[in-house]
Amino acid sequence: MAVYTEVSDEELAAFISLYDIGGVLSVKGIAEGVENSNFLLRTEGGTFILTLYEKRVKAEDLPFFIALMEHLAQHGLNCPQPVRNRSGEALGQLADRAAAIVTFLEGIGVNRPTVQHCGPVGEVLAQLHLAGADFKGFRANALSVSGWRPLFDAAKDGADTVTPGLRDATAAALADLEQEWPQGLPSGVIHADLFPDNVFFLKGELSGLIDFYFACNDFYAYDLAIGLNAWCFEKDGSFNMTKGRAMIAGYQSLRVLTPAEVAALPILCRGAALRFMLTRLVDWLNVPPGALVRPKDPLEYYRKLRFFQSADKATDFGYVE
Amino acid sequence: MAVYTEVSDEELAAFISLYDIGGVLSVKGIAEGVENSNFLLRTEGGTFILTLYEKRVKAEDLPFFIALMEHLAQHGLNCPQPVRNRSGEALGQLADRAAAIVTFLEGIGVNRPTVQHCGPVGEVLAQLHLAGADFKGFRANALSVSGWRPLFDAAKDGADTVTPGLRDATAAALADLEQEWPQGLPSGVIHADLFPDNVFFLKGELSGLIDFYFACNDFYAYDLAIGLNAWCFEKDGSFNMTKGRAMIAGYQSLRVLTPAEVAALPILCRGAALRFMLTRLVDWLNVPPGALVRPKDPLEYYRKLRFFQSADKATDFGYVE
Repeated sequence: MAVYTEVSDEELAAFISLYDIGGVLSVKGIAEGVENSNFLLRTEGGTFILTLYEKRVKAEDLPFFIALMEHLAQHGLNCPQPVRNRSGEALGQLADRAAAIVTFLEGIGVNRPTVQHCGPVGEVLAQLHLAGADFKGFRANALSVSGWRPLFDAAKDGADTVTPGLRDATAAALADLEQEWPQGLPSGVIHADLFPDNVFFLKGELSGLIDFYFACNDFYAYDLAIGLNAWCFEKDGSFNMTKGRAMIAGYQSLRVLTPAEVAALPILCRGAALRFMLTRLVDWLNVPPGALVRPKDPLEYYRKLRFFQSADKATDFGYVE
Repeated sequence: MAVYTEVSDEELAAFISLYDIGGVLSVKGIAEGVENSNFLLRTEGGTFILTLYEKRVKAEDLPFFIALMEHLAQHGLNCPQPVRNRSGEALGQLADRAAAIVTFLEGIGVNRPTVQHCGPVGEVLAQLHLAGADFKGFRANALSVSGWRPLFDAAKDGADTVTPGLRDATAAALADLEQEWPQGLPSGVIHADLFPDNVFFLKGELSGLIDFYFACNDFYAYDLAIGLNAWCFEKDGSFNMTKGRAMIAGYQSLRVLTPAEVAALPILCRGAALRFMLTRLVDWLNVPPGALVRPKDPLEYYRKLRFFQSADKATDFGYVE
């Protein structure tokens, strides 16, 4: 949740004037997204989200994200739709940053996931995978297994200050995953960050997805592994089997997992837990003085990693044969 | 700018169901207001601001603020209008905090005040004073001259860590003000915090005022003194005489200052500078670890204080005889 960049009225008015959306009626920085500055923009033409891309998002990746949102929206997925300006551009410059306007999606992010959310989330993940199947863009997943060792190296010296033994345990988990990581599983565009705050519900129905700024090409089943990590644990750290079953069943209602995917799922779940633990650990150990954003707890994902280390088979966390 | 409190979907839905504004369509925490948590709320009935009052706002003051906003709106001032629930209450409880829903005001807060803003701001201050003249509520100004010594006592030991000599200079300024502070000037309800982010403009016209949570009963001319502090200095610390003239002339176009007010204005301006310097200094010296809000620079108001110490008469900062 953040607004990192202040935009002057003059800059904003000049930027908006390039679009066919009327004059600005109001603009509010919103506490949403940790990577970018987001503003809820009301103009004579409607309600929009204005995003300023901060340094953690690479400029060369932006066309991929924009094209993906357009593709998915055209293929029936309810997600923000980039608005093009009069020159046909969806990306511009504002306050020295790349900036885009997307349509506003009604709905409320989930803050307490329940079993009722997990089925629809599994389903929408499969829907996204199917809708993205003929998408032409490609973006490698910088945060897959080959990206974890550099993160570990950046964090290892401070790891034991977070909890004793974390360094050795993480080194061992990482070495195992580097050895075991599967190859050749069904792949395509994945969301790669489908956490509860990125899924909107309205009156009990899933109403849309946001935040495609980690989307990339990777194994479909890895996206499901991220979902199981993000949605199916209770606050006390325990895994909720009913949630796991609901999510996997929801996913399979649209796309049936192959035997190879089912076999790899425990490894992918461990990998997903390690990935979020590592990025959180790096953030945790590198909070700049005066930071406005409180880092997320890496130990939450250390506990999830340990759960998945104790799971041999996908049936241990909700797959039904 | 802050969202301090997380509200669960269930709590929110239950709270909203007490009102006749339809179901929730979306709710976004917004980066506005340093004292409370604010959410931009869209329901089937329209767009609103939902405010959760955090601990710095006293619960017993809330009925004053709510009644004042209703009174001012009824008297033609464009400001948020509290929405009453089906039981006729404008104040409720949400996530263990007092909470209110107010109407959403279109318009954009000013982030770079220009001369064109200062006239309308002076005018709206006078409009507020006139509109509030028959308001029945009363709230003493806890941050007037009698409230400054406790703030100074809380900050004095750390003052010189902010800039050398600040403690002695502040002590001297405070002692002078305690001696010279005027009595018996025309009084009534004042806004007491009319900073640029609390004044909305739309297409070059002042479109409304927000944030009445410092409003209180005090000298009208003290409100103007706060305005001169908040709007009429440049970023380099210099006082812009054209802005000062525009604001005072704007004010007097609706309410002419009495000779006693004109005579007292230099003291009131010094007082306003000291008041904001002291509250900022206390905040600066008491940033909690892990704070999400960056404190504002107290030295900005120390410089303003020194400017007004060098001004003998109101003509030195924009009053025209």
